[in-house]
Amino acid sequence: MKLRIAFGQINAFVGNFQHNFLKIKDCILKAKERSCDLVVFPELAITGYPPEDLLHKEGFIRENMSYVKKIVSLCDNIICLVGFVRSETSRGMRGKEKDQLYNSAALIHKKRIIDIYNKIHLPNYGVFDEKRYFAPGHIIPVYDLGGIFFGISICEDIWAEDTPLFEQSKNGSIINININASPYYKEKAKDRLKRMKEIALKTGTVICYLNMVGGQDEVVYDGHSLIVDNKGQLVRTGKQFEEDLFFFDLEAKGKKLNRKSKVHLVKIKGFQPKEKKDFKKYSAQKTPFYELPQEIYTALTLGTRDYVDKNNFKKVVIGLSGGIDSALTTLIAVDALGKKNVTALFMPSRFTSQESRQDAETLARNLGIKLHTLPIDDICSSYLRSLEQIFRDLPPDITEENIQARIRGNILMAFSNKFKALVLATGNKSEMSTGYTTLYGDLAGGFAVIKDVPKTLVYQLVHYRNKQSKTELVPARIIHKAPTAELKKDQKDSDTLPPYPLLDKILFLYIEKYLTLPEIMKKGFQRDMVKKVIGMVDRSEYKRRQSPPGIKISKVALGKDRRMPITNGFAPG
Amino acid sequence: MKLRIAFGQINAFVGNFQHNFLKIKDCILKAKERSCDLVVFPELAITGYPPEDLLHKEGFIRENMSYVKKIVSLCDNIICLVGFVRSETSRGMRGKEKDQLYNSAALIHKKRIIDIYNKIHLPNYGVFDEKRYFAPGHIIPVYDLGGIFFGISICEDIWAEDTPLFEQSKNGSIINININASPYYKEKAKDRLKRMKEIALKTGTVICYLNMVGGQDEVVYDGHSLIVDNKGQLVRTGKQFEEDLFFFDLEAKGKKLNRKSKVHLVKIKGFQPKEKKDFKKYSAQKTPFYELPQEIYTALTLGTRDYVDKNNFKKVVIGLSGGIDSALTTLIAVDALGKKNVTALFMPSRFTSQESRQDAETLARNLGIKLHTLPIDDICSSYLRSLEQIFRDLPPDITEENIQARIRGNILMAFSNKFKALVLATGNKSEMSTGYTTLYGDLAGGFAVIKDVPKTLVYQLVHYRNKQSKTELVPARIIHKAPTAELKKDQKDSDTLPPYPLLDKILFLYIEKYLTLPEIMKKGFQRDMVKKVIGMVDRSEYKRRQSPPGIKISKVALGKDRRMPITNGFAPG
Repeated sequence: MKLRIAFGQINAFVGNFQHNFLKIKDCILKAKERSCDLVVFPELAITGYPPEDLLHKEGFIRENMSYVKKIVSLCDNIICLVGFVRSETSRGMRGKEKDQLYNSAALIHKKRIIDIYNKIHLPNYGVFDEKRYFAPGHIIPVYDLGGIFFGISICEDIWAEDTPLFEQSKNGSIINININASPYYKEKAKDRLKRMKEIALKTGTVICYLNMVGGQDEVVYDGHSLIVDNKGQLVRTGKQFEEDLFFFDLEAKGKKLNRKSKVHLVKIKGFQPKEKKDFKKYSAQKTPFYELPQEIYTALTLGTRDYVDKNNFKKVVIGLSGGIDSALTTLIAVDALGKKNVTALFMPSRFTSQESRQDAETLARNLGIKLHTLPIDDICSSYLRSLEQIFRDLPPDITEENIQARIRGNILMAFSNKFKALVLATGNKSEMSTGYTTLYGDLAGGFAVIKDVPKTLVYQLVHYRNKQSKTELVPARIIHKAPTAELKKDQKDSDTLPPYPLLDKILFLYIEKYLTLPEIMKKGFQRDMVKKVIGMVDRSEYKRRQSPPGIKISKVALGKDRRMPITNGFAPG
Repeated sequence: MKLRIAFGQINAFVGNFQHNFLKIKDCILKAKERSCDLVVFPELAITGYPPEDLLHKEGFIRENMSYVKKIVSLCDNIICLVGFVRSETSRGMRGKEKDQLYNSAALIHKKRIIDIYNKIHLPNYGVFDEKRYFAPGHIIPVYDLGGIFFGISICEDIWAEDTPLFEQSKNGSIINININASPYYKEKAKDRLKRMKEIALKTGTVICYLNMVGGQDEVVYDGHSLIVDNKGQLVRTGKQFEEDLFFFDLEAKGKKLNRKSKVHLVKIKGFQPKEKKDFKKYSAQKTPFYELPQEIYTALTLGTRDYVDKNNFKKVVIGLSGGIDSALTTLIAVDALGKKNVTALFMPSRFTSQESRQDAETLARNLGIKLHTLPIDDICSSYLRSLEQIFRDLPPDITEENIQARIRGNILMAFSNKFKALVLATGNKSEMSTGYTTLYGDLAGGFAVIKDVPKTLVYQLVHYRNKQSKTELVPARIIHKAPTAELKKDQKDSDTLPPYPLLDKILFLYIEKYLTLPEIMKKGFQRDMVKKVIGMVDRSEYKRRQSPPGIKISKVALGKDRRMPITNGFAPG
């Protein structure tokens, strides 16, 4: 049987049903034009992912159902698989009625829902909270498409040790479709490909892995859907970090079956494969995998663009210090939103060097963005005069440094309020982790673009972007000068923090590997240094709790991924 | 058999094993002195609750085990039940080893762990994330204490429809001990008592409900442990919002059994009830339930004290505006920490009325706290001069209001930095919900005491405290004047918000009942007003995400309880 399947790798918008519906509709129409037999959409394509506590609203669930119906009415002569939220009223053991939600996929044909699959394996780790909302499904379906059998599953289902794909393939499925809303972290694409190949080989079936694309608060879906054939070969990919509607042609032969009773067999009645021109045209198109710095850079760009767009902003404003973090943030903003939508504020104090000023100006010129200069010394003096009576003769300390940072935060927010520009915060993961940042100061902003990017990676990303542009977009001096917050005379980051290459290694072990002081020491780090670093991390939990959301690019980002108590007496070793 | 049971209603500290151990040890020693046969501690008493992602650290789990061993060594001639985290290595279906954690209770006797119970029902809603960490237990134990049988269970287990207590009582248990870390919300004590009576009557057993006490970030455990006899009568309570070690004497008779095989029966070997003086002395002591305003006020006081103490602060600083929110916050702070540890800053601008100044001064005098006055107009002018070139002739708007609020935030933080005083934010739930608050301005602070208190309840709490003190602690004018932010001329909250009694009703339906616009209208509210309010709530999600933690006193607080996306296109009706 000659089958053509369309994959709608769409950028869904949480809660914006009309937005999602129009994208789905557009894909269905195009799939019909190309004589597709089946069109597939991502996990929770109708609601966007994750809807979080919107799922507690009955009105939200109803709206989601009304859009399923709209999609049903579009699917006359095409089979459609689409993710949605199912609500089911069941009776508990004492006869009490209760509503259960399922993370489900509707299989639609001839303007009817012919079956609903409920996700079996619900992730409840990292950024995921699915057990907060959904009950697990228990039924493993196989669909009979005129003698050709296929299986469907949702996201985590394919990663579970006892994945339903084993049961499906034992029961005759030769194509297994897995729909996803799978958040990006670096090199996840490789993990996915490895798993899909493994499952394809173990089951001897074609694996169609469809992912969502786009940014949603802290996460970015990277698209990059994969089709792996029954020999474990990657044969087709969706675009990486972009929407895509792609097609796949498959000559399918039915298997001889020794059917077991474990699966739920559904016959798709009245199905006739369509006549196709150019059969096999769509069977082997692959986009190359991005290499690492580019992959991360592209994730950050997409995440920033979508956060700004979906929250109804057009413009952003960034505090440019002349340092490398604000330079990278600005680069990403310009790539995401266009130079006309990015404004930079340079806010020098008496501690700001001439070099910083020149570097900020050069960078703004190179990027073609508007730069305003607003000195903060007068404002700072007015604070100190006001506080004089209370502070008396106490020596200057971190207080006076923070006042400066918070003046800059206030100016950025004032610009934001006046011109409806979102403030992008510029802090990196090394700073955010150690608390080497001022709450309400440089931490101020609606979105923290490089929150999950360690300082050492900041350099790599700037190098990559400079190299890619074939010009020195970011001036060499910004890259080569010693990092400084310029909040007091001759200040250097290295006065407070270990050298960044060392710091980032300790932070990786502490944050991403969950090691404790004695365990990190065993990896060859000095006790005093480790103790100091993890003390800084633990004591600054309260700052991170109040920091803006930022884009997850690592396995353990500083946000929903990492839920540490602020009040925390744990200090071993 | 004459049994005496001790209940250690302790204030555990998350991660501070030594702190928790010393409390447990103290209770064990006192229980031995009083000839107790059994001593019981709350859920996760060893680690504190909730340890959150500290549970991802193997070093944390090991430390927890080493403290279990210390407790074991104390329990020679007393049986001890204590909550801890169990780690078990099991083999998955493909032979892979994996570590599973359980929320468990160790039953200790004669310096040995004689059994471990794993919590069966894991809450994963509201503020709870137990399925993120723990695997569920499956074994229902009954313990044979020389012919007297008892059962144990943990927290949620007693609330589940298929609670293990049914199985335990069917299998002979006459006493069922349920250990908890149950967060407070208003009137929860009544729900608990109702459930305990229900279970006591259904099972015909004595229910011993032991709760933790104390504040941990957003939650407060209210203690108030309950013992309900087998006739459904409340016979004994632990103190409300205070640590307590209390005792219960019980004359127990064994039941004739028709044992089924479903339970796991454990014989406690070599047990001999101790000789007791004054038997029955401890069988009926009850503390009265607090009435509502006092109950909430006490929860706020305990939550504030514990947040400050456990985070190693001694002092707090509060911005006093002359309004009722900062008045209530200051009252609570003084009750929690003592007047010498509370400093107030009054930061007037040209929009501040003479009345506000007088009221702030009177309040500070009534409470006996230090008040500093720091005018902000000069600082404000310096901002406006600096921004003049950019703002040009644009008319004043919310920008200029926010600048003032953020100056105050910066001054408070400067005071905090210089004097190591925690800033208490003063925003109430009505403001936090609608976003009628300035991010980094009045939202600034380490802890937001009344974050979950709607404005209408703010008044009730102030009335209660005034009445209780039998003086006008909070001057009548603070209570009676129209609420105003005083950020522009003749500003009133009512210019922007519906009247608070109306607003709070809409917010309750929207936030705590998860209703949508059309559903709220059906309750008799005007479309335009509801639309405006819920629009404000939805658009200010980003502010709440960056707000300080505050104390949960309602069923749905603004924190871990309510997890809404910032990027959210849902707007029905």
